Amino acid sequence: MITKKYMHKTKLPADQKNIRIIPLGGVEEIGRNMTVIEYKDDIIIVDAGLQFPQEETPGIDYIIPNTQYLESRRGRIRGLVISHGHLDHVGAIPYLISKIGNPTIYTTQLTKAMILKRQEEFPHGPKLRIEEVKPGQKIRVGQNLKLDFFAITHTIPDAIGTIIETPLGNVIYPGDFKIERDSRGNPVKIDNFITLGKQKNLVLLLESTNAEAPGFSISEKTVRENLEKIINETSGRIIVGTFSSLIERIIDIAEIAEKAGRKVVIDGYSMKANIEIAKELKFFNPKKQVFLPAENIEEYPPNKIIAICTGAQGERNAALMRIANKKHKYIKIHKGDTIILSSSIIPGNERSIQNLKDNLARQGAKIIHYKVADVHASGHAYQEELKLMMKMIKPKFLIPVHGYYFMLKTNADLAESIGIPPENVVVPLNNGVIIETDGRKIETIKETAPSNYVMVDGLGVGDVKEIVLRDRQMLAQDGIFVVIAVIDSQTGKIKNSPDIISRGFIYLRESQDLLRQTRQIIKRTAEETAGKMHPINITYVKELIREKVAKFLFQKTKRRPMVLPVLIEV
Amino acid sequence: MITKKYMHKTKLPADQKNIRIIPLGGVEEIGRNMTVIEYKDDIIIVDAGLQFPQEETPGIDYIIPNTQYLESRRGRIRGLVISHGHLDHVGAIPYLISKIGNPTIYTTQLTKAMILKRQEEFPHGPKLRIEEVKPGQKIRVGQNLKLDFFAITHTIPDAIGTIIETPLGNVIYPGDFKIERDSRGNPVKIDNFITLGKQKNLVLLLESTNAEAPGFSISEKTVRENLEKIINETSGRIIVGTFSSLIERIIDIAEIAEKAGRKVVIDGYSMKANIEIAKELKFFNPKKQVFLPAENIEEYPPNKIIAICTGAQGERNAALMRIANKKHKYIKIHKGDTIILSSSIIPGNERSIQNLKDNLARQGAKIIHYKVADVHASGHAYQEELKLMMKMIKPKFLIPVHGYYFMLKTNADLAESIGIPPENVVVPLNNGVIIETDGRKIETIKETAPSNYVMVDGLGVGDVKEIVLRDRQMLAQDGIFVVIAVIDSQTGKIKNSPDIISRGFIYLRESQDLLRQTRQIIKRTAEETAGKMHPINITYVKELIREKVAKFLFQKTKRRPMVLPVLIEV
Repeated sequence: MITKKYMHKTKLPADQKNIRIIPLGGVEEIGRNMTVIEYKDDIIIVDAGLQFPQEETPGIDYIIPNTQYLESRRGRIRGLVISHGHLDHVGAIPYLISKIGNPTIYTTQLTKAMILKRQEEFPHGPKLRIEEVKPGQKIRVGQNLKLDFFAITHTIPDAIGTIIETPLGNVIYPGDFKIERDSRGNPVKIDNFITLGKQKNLVLLLESTNAEAPGFSISEKTVRENLEKIINETSGRIIVGTFSSLIERIIDIAEIAEKAGRKVVIDGYSMKANIEIAKELKFFNPKKQVFLPAENIEEYPPNKIIAICTGAQGERNAALMRIANKKHKYIKIHKGDTIILSSSIIPGNERSIQNLKDNLARQGAKIIHYKVADVHASGHAYQEELKLMMKMIKPKFLIPVHGYYFMLKTNADLAESIGIPPENVVVPLNNGVIIETDGRKIETIKETAPSNYVMVDGLGVGDVKEIVLRDRQMLAQDGIFVVIAVIDSQTGKIKNSPDIISRGFIYLRESQDLLRQTRQIIKRTAEETAGKMHPINITYVKELIREKVAKFLFQKTKRRPMVLPVLIEV
Repeated sequence: MITKKYMHKTKLPADQKNIRIIPLGGVEEIGRNMTVIEYKDDIIIVDAGLQFPQEETPGIDYIIPNTQYLESRRGRIRGLVISHGHLDHVGAIPYLISKIGNPTIYTTQLTKAMILKRQEEFPHGPKLRIEEVKPGQKIRVGQNLKLDFFAITHTIPDAIGTIIETPLGNVIYPGDFKIERDSRGNPVKIDNFITLGKQKNLVLLLESTNAEAPGFSISEKTVRENLEKIINETSGRIIVGTFSSLIERIIDIAEIAEKAGRKVVIDGYSMKANIEIAKELKFFNPKKQVFLPAENIEEYPPNKIIAICTGAQGERNAALMRIANKKHKYIKIHKGDTIILSSSIIPGNERSIQNLKDNLARQGAKIIHYKVADVHASGHAYQEELKLMMKMIKPKFLIPVHGYYFMLKTNADLAESIGIPPENVVVPLNNGVIIETDGRKIETIKETAPSNYVMVDGLGVGDVKEIVLRDRQMLAQDGIFVVIAVIDSQTGKIKNSPDIISRGFIYLRESQDLLRQTRQIIKRTAEETAGKMHPINITYVKELIREKVAKFLFQKTKRRPMVLPVLIEV
């Protein structure tokens, strides 16, 4: 049936000889990156990330990709390749790995360690099967595919790009990347891309996070030099706030501190865990005495200390936020402390970062952030880097991924600007679009894979649906108003005074008059209706009470709490 | 009592000879600007703005300044001066004017018209007493004060700055401003500031909105030129999204359109209203035929139309958002339409603007926004403009206002950089601080004015308090779970099966097993406890049920809905 419907709708020959590429997440958002590459009987998945909740998904922990398409094709999944250890690439693994049949995960040493560390929080999950890979290593998977890997620069060590070799040509997925440059601004470490460019590269899946940013990203080297300069010129105490995922940056700062004769306090659960893993695997080899537990921070003079903390986004319970709010057990702001916010502002966090800065400044701290000095660089390629990558890889077809639609479209415009024909570029309109190529042309077919949000809330995965979210939004607006009345099933009369429970609507103690009038409406409505019914149609009476009470409350307050009447027959 | 307490705490002589300056709003936020200037028996208030709700104030319409300090001193209020017609300066008037005794409002012609227009929405409000003023006009108020006004450039016509003349010297409040520059970048129209600088200027209340932005703001002239260029070079249809409050910009665009032979469609309630007022008062004199109602837009070829719409911030029901979401009755996006977003991004709106851009781009529109071309300029002074203003006015003391603490502090740092002694600059730590000067020194005294949030929600002003907001936040996180049980007051047994109503927690229809177990817990808990009580302590039993049910639900779901038990005794 599906084949027929599909043949009917697509212009490409639907004879199983096409490569299918399906972004299951990451093309309508920043986050939950996951893309399916399917050829004949073989499926390879690249990445399985999560997304943080949005304003319209209150109370949700995470949003993960919808894997229904894969669930019905589990038997053909040959592997899940993970490009690096950030949550928007690995975060969904614990929630979906069983649903897709626990396939082999191919990734590098550090990423593997980070995945396994996180999996410890899911004791009921399956034992993961992870095969460690290295750049340059080739692996045959399934009947028709080979995997090959190449090193890539991002803000975390051990990131890899993937080549999926198919009989029609390569599908190339660099994942998140930036291109390093030397002090003159010339790109370095690009030989392997140029070599790769000589192969038969059919499709490039290119990230679009910074497709709107002109020029080149600031190099991490510049950031390191600036941080070193600031640290060396500061005589007081320094507290650096950054992302726990920027492992390379944290290592850099710790190394600078070591050189400057400052002890390093690492604070924040995830940052400590990441640094431990990096140390264990020898990605970082500090002298033993350089680290100091936070509880000993006051034992050292200000110029002998540097603290590196989570919380630069103003996350509620992260280290820097607790410090700013005077809730940190060991670290207090002293007048004259220098705070370096070595991070960008993730959209949506503006207000909490403002709050963070305000509270730190109120206590007399000096704040250096990315707008006043280059103390942060993005790990994602800017326009010139994206174009350079396209030129080096020389793919026949381009599919922009990772970003909101407008970012993907801007990335596609970049491709056009360097001469890639528009018909060779497919911008995924939505998650779940199915893109097919027979090697000569590429297009989105009419069939789609399911792509609605799968939400993680506490222990539930996918059980919070539209209706529950809509209710939460409504409750957040004007609260709830529950009416409980006991009705005499013989006479239709309300016994005693109806109970009213309300939360988030008005302060009841100050609204006695409103409550009194509401009770009268309930009694009157019930008695006028139910009194004439034998037997009483409870559903009808309830609905009428709901209507009348909602109308009355709106009239009196111009608010619309959720009104829920309960009628108990005795 | 107050005087004694106050004398005890301050170093300044508290002999009524000091000037008091109290920011009641606008120094912990962008918005709800309102400042009190008090000298002996006379109080002048400048501005009465509102603030839009925050993430932590769900369901709220607006936040307004707390006027308790003024309410107890009503008899001494000599006037409310309004600097211009934006909502962060006039928006609170309808909600607080009665509370402060309906004082005379001093403002300019256009601002007066905008205030009166808005007041129409409050038919139960008092009749406003507005005295129209002009730059250069002096007015004696109260026993000791004079008001004087000067013209200022902002993004709305007829904006004024105010000089409050006191026996100790002038308090100067420019309000929101930017400094115009000629095509060489030199400041123009600054003669009146230089003249003003020759007076005895004691305190300058200086806005801080863009205190973190280096250099000069882009001039409105540049924006106009860029818009003209884009409009002249575009052959297709143009839709401009901008703020309805940027009246000067809207007039500019309409004039450019008129010259280019394009008809102008204005869409959006507030934008239409503002343009009507500007036309009526002759701030804008278009030819009659230039405007076109939206319903006729399809009658003209694309190159003969320009639509100017509200909704560039992605506001849910504004014109451009309805167009993007295909919900606009008359205006549909055609492939090849050019959308100009002549606006900045207000922090907090990133996601909805992204959404707007995505939906417009998906329909084939080309989008030009402030990051790719200078099609928007801020109406607020950048660092060099702020410094220039300080240098021209030459105040003895500076109080940065309008902005978050870190912005005010940055503004204070600017003052220090041009040689104003730090002890002559007071950064308000919070709304409600009382700053006093005797003409020789200035400081914040210990006493404070009440400053907690006053929230407007529907018809209620100030009745939504912390507890209601906390409940709304909780409800938004995990919803509510109401348990209703009928208990036999003789035996303590639960009659029938307890009713359960839940919203925003889980989808009940798919959770029958959980509900069954919860009912058992309710029954068991009630019977084990109440069975042994004579009479039954209902409060105790209820609390126990609440605890047990909450614990059970958390165990099963890792969610914490608000659990509300109702026990009905029969």
